[in-house]
Amino acid sequence: MSVAEEFTLDFARSERIGLEEAIFCAGKSPEQIDAILEAARVRGASLLLTRLDPEKRDRLRDAARLDYCPVSRTAVFGEAPRVTGPARVAVVAAGTSDVPVAREALRVLAYGGRAASLFADVGVAGLWRLTTRLEDIRAHPVVIVAAGMDAALPSVVGGLVAGAVIAVPTSVGYGVAAGGRAALEAVLASCAPGITVVNIDNGYGAACAALRLLHAAGRLAEERER
Amino acid sequence: MSVAEEFTLDFARSERIGLEEAIFCAGKSPEQIDAILEAARVRGASLLLTRLDPEKRDRLRDAARLDYCPVSRTAVFGEAPRVTGPARVAVVAAGTSDVPVAREALRVLAYGGRAASLFADVGVAGLWRLTTRLEDIRAHPVVIVAAGMDAALPSVVGGLVAGAVIAVPTSVGYGVAAGGRAALEAVLASCAPGITVVNIDNGYGAACAALRLLHAAGRLAEERER
Amino acid sequence: MSVAEEFTLDFARSERIGLEEAIFCAGKSPEQIDAILEAARVRGASLLLTRLDPEKRDRLRDAARLDYCPVSRTAVFGEAPRVTGPARVAVVAAGTSDVPVAREALRVLAYGGRAASLFADVGVAGLWRLTTRLEDIRAHPVVIVAAGMDAALPSVVGGLVAGAVIAVPTSVGYGVAAGGRAALEAVLASCAPGITVVNIDNGYGAACAALRLLHAAGRLAEERER
Amino acid sequence: MSVAEEFTLDFARSERIGLEEAIFCAGKSPEQIDAILEAARVRGASLLLTRLDPEKRDRLRDAARLDYCPVSRTAVFGEAPRVTGPARVAVVAAGTSDVPVAREALRVLAYGGRAASLFADVGVAGLWRLTTRLEDIRAHPVVIVAAGMDAALPSVVGGLVAGAVIAVPTSVGYGVAAGGRAALEAVLASCAPGITVVNIDNGYGAACAALRLLHAAGRLAEERER
Amino acid sequence: MSVAEEFTLDFARSERIGLEEAIFCAGKSPEQIDAILEAARVRGASLLLTRLDPEKRDRLRDAARLDYCPVSRTAVFGEAPRVTGPARVAVVAAGTSDVPVAREALRVLAYGGRAASLFADVGVAGLWRLTTRLEDIRAHPVVIVAAGMDAALPSVVGGLVAGAVIAVPTSVGYGVAAGGRAALEAVLASCAPGITVVNIDNGYGAACAALRLLHAAGRLAEERER
Amino acid sequence: MSVAEEFTLDFARSERIGLEEAIFCAGKSPEQIDAILEAARVRGASLLLTRLDPEKRDRLRDAARLDYCPVSRTAVFGEAPRVTGPARVAVVAAGTSDVPVAREALRVLAYGGRAASLFADVGVAGLWRLTTRLEDIRAHPVVIVAAGMDAALPSVVGGLVAGAVIAVPTSVGYGVAAGGRAALEAVLASCAPGITVVNIDNGYGAACAALRLLHAAGRLAEERER
Amino acid sequence: MSVAEEFTLDFARSERIGLEEAIFCAGKSPEQIDAILEAARVRGASLLLTRLDPEKRDRLRDAARLDYCPVSRTAVFGEAPRVTGPARVAVVAAGTSDVPVAREALRVLAYGGRAASLFADVGVAGLWRLTTRLEDIRAHPVVIVAAGMDAALPSVVGGLVAGAVIAVPTSVGYGVAAGGRAALEAVLASCAPGITVVNIDNGYGAACAALRLLHAAGRLAEERER
Amino acid sequence: MSVAEEFTLDFARSERIGLEEAIFCAGKSPEQIDAILEAARVRGASLLLTRLDPEKRDRLRDAARLDYCPVSRTAVFGEAPRVTGPARVAVVAAGTSDVPVAREALRVLAYGGRAASLFADVGVAGLWRLTTRLEDIRAHPVVIVAAGMDAALPSVVGGLVAGAVIAVPTSVGYGVAAGGRAALEAVLASCAPGITVVNIDNGYGAACAALRLLHAAGRLAEERER
Repeated sequence: MSVAEEFTLDFARSERIGLEEAIFCAGKSPEQIDAILEAARVRGASLLLTRLDPEKRDRLRDAARLDYCPVSRTAVFGEAPRVTGPARVAVVAAGTSDVPVAREALRVLAYGGRAASLFADVGVAGLWRLTTRLEDIRAHPVVIVAAGMDAALPSVVGGLVAGAVIAVPTSVGYGVAAGGRAALEAVLASCAPGITVVNIDNGYGAACAALRLLHAAGRLAEERER
Repeated sequence: MSVAEEFTLDFARSERIGLEEAIFCAGKSPEQIDAILEAARVRGASLLLTRLDPEKRDRLRDAARLDYCPVSRTAVFGEAPRVTGPARVAVVAAGTSDVPVAREALRVLAYGGRAASLFADVGVAGLWRLTTRLEDIRAHPVVIVAAGMDAALPSVVGGLVAGAVIAVPTSVGYGVAAGGRAALEAVLASCAPGITVVNIDNGYGAACAALRLLHAAGRLAEERER
Repeated sequence: MSVAEEFTLDFARSERIGLEEAIFCAGKSPEQIDAILEAARVRGASLLLTRLDPEKRDRLRDAARLDYCPVSRTAVFGEAPRVTGPARVAVVAAGTSDVPVAREALRVLAYGGRAASLFADVGVAGLWRLTTRLEDIRAHPVVIVAAGMDAALPSVVGGLVAGAVIAVPTSVGYGVAAGGRAALEAVLASCAPGITVVNIDNGYGAACAALRLLHAAGRLAEERER
Repeated sequence: MSVAEEFTLDFARSERIGLEEAIFCAGKSPEQIDAILEAARVRGASLLLTRLDPEKRDRLRDAARLDYCPVSRTAVFGEAPRVTGPARVAVVAAGTSDVPVAREALRVLAYGGRAASLFADVGVAGLWRLTTRLEDIRAHPVVIVAAGMDAALPSVVGGLVAGAVIAVPTSVGYGVAAGGRAALEAVLASCAPGITVVNIDNGYGAACAALRLLHAAGRLAEERER
Repeated sequence: MSVAEEFTLDFARSERIGLEEAIFCAGKSPEQIDAILEAARVRGASLLLTRLDPEKRDRLRDAARLDYCPVSRTAVFGEAPRVTGPARVAVVAAGTSDVPVAREALRVLAYGGRAASLFADVGVAGLWRLTTRLEDIRAHPVVIVAAGMDAALPSVVGGLVAGAVIAVPTSVGYGVAAGGRAALEAVLASCAPGITVVNIDNGYGAACAALRLLHAAGRLAEERER
Repeated sequence: MSVAEEFTLDFARSERIGLEEAIFCAGKSPEQIDAILEAARVRGASLLLTRLDPEKRDRLRDAARLDYCPVSRTAVFGEAPRVTGPARVAVVAAGTSDVPVAREALRVLAYGGRAASLFADVGVAGLWRLTTRLEDIRAHPVVIVAAGMDAALPSVVGGLVAGAVIAVPTSVGYGVAAGGRAALEAVLASCAPGITVVNIDNGYGAACAALRLLHAAGRLAEERER
Repeated sequence: MSVAEEFTLDFARSERIGLEEAIFCAGKSPEQIDAILEAARVRGASLLLTRLDPEKRDRLRDAARLDYCPVSRTAVFGEAPRVTGPARVAVVAAGTSDVPVAREALRVLAYGGRAASLFADVGVAGLWRLTTRLEDIRAHPVVIVAAGMDAALPSVVGGLVAGAVIAVPTSVGYGVAAGGRAALEAVLASCAPGITVVNIDNGYGAACAALRLLHAAGRLAEERER
Repeated sequence: MSVAEEFTLDFARSERIGLEEAIFCAGKSPEQIDAILEAARVRGASLLLTRLDPEKRDRLRDAARLDYCPVSRTAVFGEAPRVTGPARVAVVAAGTSDVPVAREALRVLAYGGRAASLFADVGVAGLWRLTTRLEDIRAHPVVIVAAGMDAALPSVVGGLVAGAVIAVPTSVGYGVAAGGRAALEAVLASCAPGITVVNIDNGYGAACAALRLLHAAGRLAEERER
């Protein structure tokens, strides 16, 4: 029984779909993660790690070599790309409790080389918090909105901005809101047209979707220039 | 086997809790409803009927004596009370499809002798539709908001008005919104504090809650005057 | 990455909707709560904190300056308003296990300056416990009822009192009752007309709804006096 | 492909468990039911049929030979047993809409040779309707309670009577009550101890449970007499 | 804020419904339980405690005075009634993991003064385990069956014995079986007629139902003797 | 807009996985099915059609050329393979209402060229119906069991036979059993080891699984012979 | 009671968010739709109608003036924009039964002035159907994938193309797949990174999301050119 | 109260259904497991233990005598059978996090005397990982596929291999994927025909199903040889 036969890294992913391989650490043992990092090291590759709890991080052999963020539970192993250009993605968090998910998105965007801006605690219970920052948000062609509880914010944002809107329902809340199903269904059922959705608490996925979109936009721009 | 033993009208309800007996017609046979109406007639009492489908109405013996509204599927048997005073309740419908539920609330309020105002199709996908009518809505101390799909409107209203807010989730929508669970959970999980909720499509219940509230307010006002 | 950009306090809330800003502490880190308290202190504002677990409280910088209640997990930072006038709200707990939710409602009402009365362990399994206290409960125009398991009490109360009834389903119970869904659905489906509902275990929301209602009643009384 | 190979009647059931074979007609084709009745006829056996819709009844070859009740959708084929002795089972229906389920229970009890009494429309929204009939209900050692919506009645009854209580949740209601899940969970989570439950709308099962119970009581009485 | 106002013991319960007051300890604080025990002590009453975890037991002031069973998490405070007569109730556990629920039922029956027999690990995966003990089980007019996972045992038992069958679904299992919903629905949907059901893991409720039933049987026997 | 671009038949399927292409007709329009049949005709291929309602069948251009079975709602277009050899698959139906699903499996097996035997109405409520036919069932190395409601039969069969057991939960039943979820979860949670499961009402899938298995057995036999 | 007060058209939507107002016809009465069309006519505006069943279409006053597509149940009232440029959006349908949803997306894209290509029946059960068309699909920077049942196709596509991927789960299927929840959850849980999701059967929403994305890409291209 | 009466080992199982008795340790106390092991020791029997957490293992009296695997949480007590012959079962794990479930299947197969091969981390997000190993997988007539999240892999495998496919959904994932329901429903709804399914995380059950299948194949081969 060997750990080495338990994983197959997809180093061709970036070339194929424009997104780097990333390691989802929940459900993996420290031994498995150690072996994966070693495989990346041998190859001279960088790796992004998500859902790495502080306790598991502490049990890794090379914890010290990780650039770790406890709020978003993400880590970068090896060299991270340089972030360049103006911020094209706005990451909006409805409440303070949604910030960890927003930070995960920001970290993944940075690992993808893209600048982004955070707008936090602008939920609809106090609409003025959104409207005073609306022009700033609108300046970004892509908007990620993380919201839990009733997740009303993505609908309001979707009715006010013309860019691409990616909603991330979060598991913030209790009672019917616990676990994030209520938020998920609210954004899927949004009355504002053209909002897209990713899994609950999936800041990583929202950022990947934004990276795909910027990639597509780049292709369209190139075609147009030709 | 006799229909007469199948119901027991609660004519004391009004005295006890300030709300008239009403007949929920879904699940009752035309024979049962006929017998109930006859019992009311004998006693000289009026009755409110809810959830009376047009097909079932047509099968009643005394259909012609009902004041029937097909949009809200409500009917009044006998004398209805006179509506007096200024409108104290705003009934807000997020979309045009939510109007039947809103109309049910309006009919029940009227049967309770209370004036009310309708504000329709002011959902958050086009927020200007709400903001241009906000001052009018605020003029009503009690606000009923009927909304389906993501039901973001009650949260936005709850963050903007100081009065009592009663949300009625509706079954408008499809996919995750079908049946109204997504709307129900959104309003229960609302980030706006102090919003109360009734069952899906329950315009009747929302109106009764408003009547209870106006009744309580009346008592408080009387105490204050003393 | 700075905590300061992660929150935006809504100090205008009170003026806008008659309810003070409150901090939902579940899902917020001690660092975030500390920063929020500091922002309130700088401004000279009071704050209500909800869902503050004892463990998290102990990790706050200024734990000692909080007026903390471990049963309801609420805390008041700074000056609390004086409670005046007779009790207008009855807070009824079906069982002893529902008391924490009821206490949360009582604390929020007190923070809103309103007197209230507690009636505990009057569930329907022993109906005499309710009936012997019914006249006392009826003396309050607003009744909050916290109940878990089958949540039959709000329906019984709703059939006996004429005032406004706000039901708070609780997560007390196991099996089908675990988490409070069964209680929630029971109160939403209540056969007693005009009962309103808030989220599971949401004593805070029930109290806010009562405050909105008393505010609305005040406006109606003022109009009547004119 | 022959219909004859599609069923195997359990004529030994009565001897084994004290309950007669019964035919659940939903999901069976008229051809299948015809063949089953023919098999019973050949053997000279009686049969109870449940969930037989009027439309399907009309498509049976021997419809005229059935003693059919459209309210409960039950039919008796052949000789039914004589009902003897005083009523030992009270069948209580919370609302008028719950009567079909109650009637199914009454029919099955009669087919089992047991007398029973109906108490209809005594739900908790008007508690006086129950209390005025309580002594009558208490006179029956076994009480079946059919209730939909919030199904609060079985809990109240369970707290007031000492006999065996069998709750039948019904699918009466809409929104969260539609389908009867809310009622089912309410009775399972009942705060009144010792209430037992059968499937939604299962008046047949409740009656069978009562028959089992009376059978067990008979055995106990015999032992005592010895 | 006083613990004394948080409970109202129902000492009249036994007289009213034939079942003693019992204290559901989950969700109650040690302070609350201490106060309840003190109230019983003052009155000279006994009490049954259910769902008392060992950790909470250890935090009680009078832990030493309880007759505590860690398997069933039940405790008896004060004098317990003497168990008399032959065993009339069979308590059947489908698997070894279902034994704690079965033991809870046995303890409650003993507290009610009734003898009972345990039959454990007789699930349908090895049907011979049931059939070799079937005659013994049949000798009891009342049969409680605790089963988790697919809960097929109550259906098989229900098809083989003529007595009253009370099924207790348990939370034993994982995946779709976790929490006991699959078991609950299986027994509610049982193809064997007349099986009754209580809440998941509710050994207490099953025993109370058996006590009610024995009580009803006693009444019937008395009538017969007259 | 052309129907021709709406389908791509997978005629290579048989070679790839040993199962013929089949057409799932629910959700396809008569126009689409007509075009598919025409494409098969042109190629000289046979086709199996599943979930073809009689109404839709009647709307097909070539309805007369189909070998149609209304009980199982299957049709064969073109030449069907000859069924050869002894029956290796037992198809067991718990109740008469489960026969349509069993018949679908039988038809698909026949289309796959495999003989099979039907055992109907042998559910556990009358266990003797199973035990008297057990040896016959055991003679088949592969056993498909279709069962609705509590689906206890597959567990009992799985504990008694050594062959491969494929359970098909059916949607037969009402209340918690409606739609087949309860049956599905019961078989997934079966206490009998090694039972496999297919989707609700999926007689087609169960038969395909049996065909895969017989195919695998053939390969193993060939290897052994070598 | 007037229909005119029941809707408020959002003609400013296009300017605000780049998407035209569209009328969701499910839940609206023919009278309401007639009034809405009249309002558009008066203003000289075009309108897109979605979820317009043929039966409801036939009941409209101006049915003849609609450009109606019965497969997608969409209609265009008034002048539709001209579609220009090469196809930038690939609309992929996993099965033939998913075509109506795909056609809705195509119609909405055309109404938005964007060309698009359909790729139908390329589900993973026969992977060659996808791989032979993969290069064609990859030529489109935006890919919409409609899939029901297990919805495995979006994950496979997401692992093979670099563009933006918008998954539309469909309600195609039965048993656990009925209603589309299984498909929805599969795409939300996709192992392929960066896939975004819209509501079940929401071809309209997927197309709107694509339009937002193309709009964002246009802005980015303009910035780059500057 | 004795532990000995709490279990009944099924040593006849192997003879009856070809599978050895196994002990499911979750939900059993260390005392119960100790007693079971002792009973096996007395009889000279071996036992397989599943779901034995390391903590519980450490609390067993004879922990040292177990052959324990912490990854799969399985243990063998006593002599295990010798594994013979070539690998006939492929165990495929979609991701590294699914390996514990795959290892459980491998351990159970080995305990059944059957060789098997592991193929790990070949999920569809990087399809090349599967295709490069496809021929190896195809060489096994039985394929077990463990997959969490969207569980798309079993559908893809099912469309590519002709052997028997047994899918094990796993609880790997978060949000909608947490607990494994999304994976379960995806494999049940698979568009690839003839895939069978076991409970979530049930590597044990998948292996038992494979053993049943190999047993059936053996019988068929023997018949053929005759």
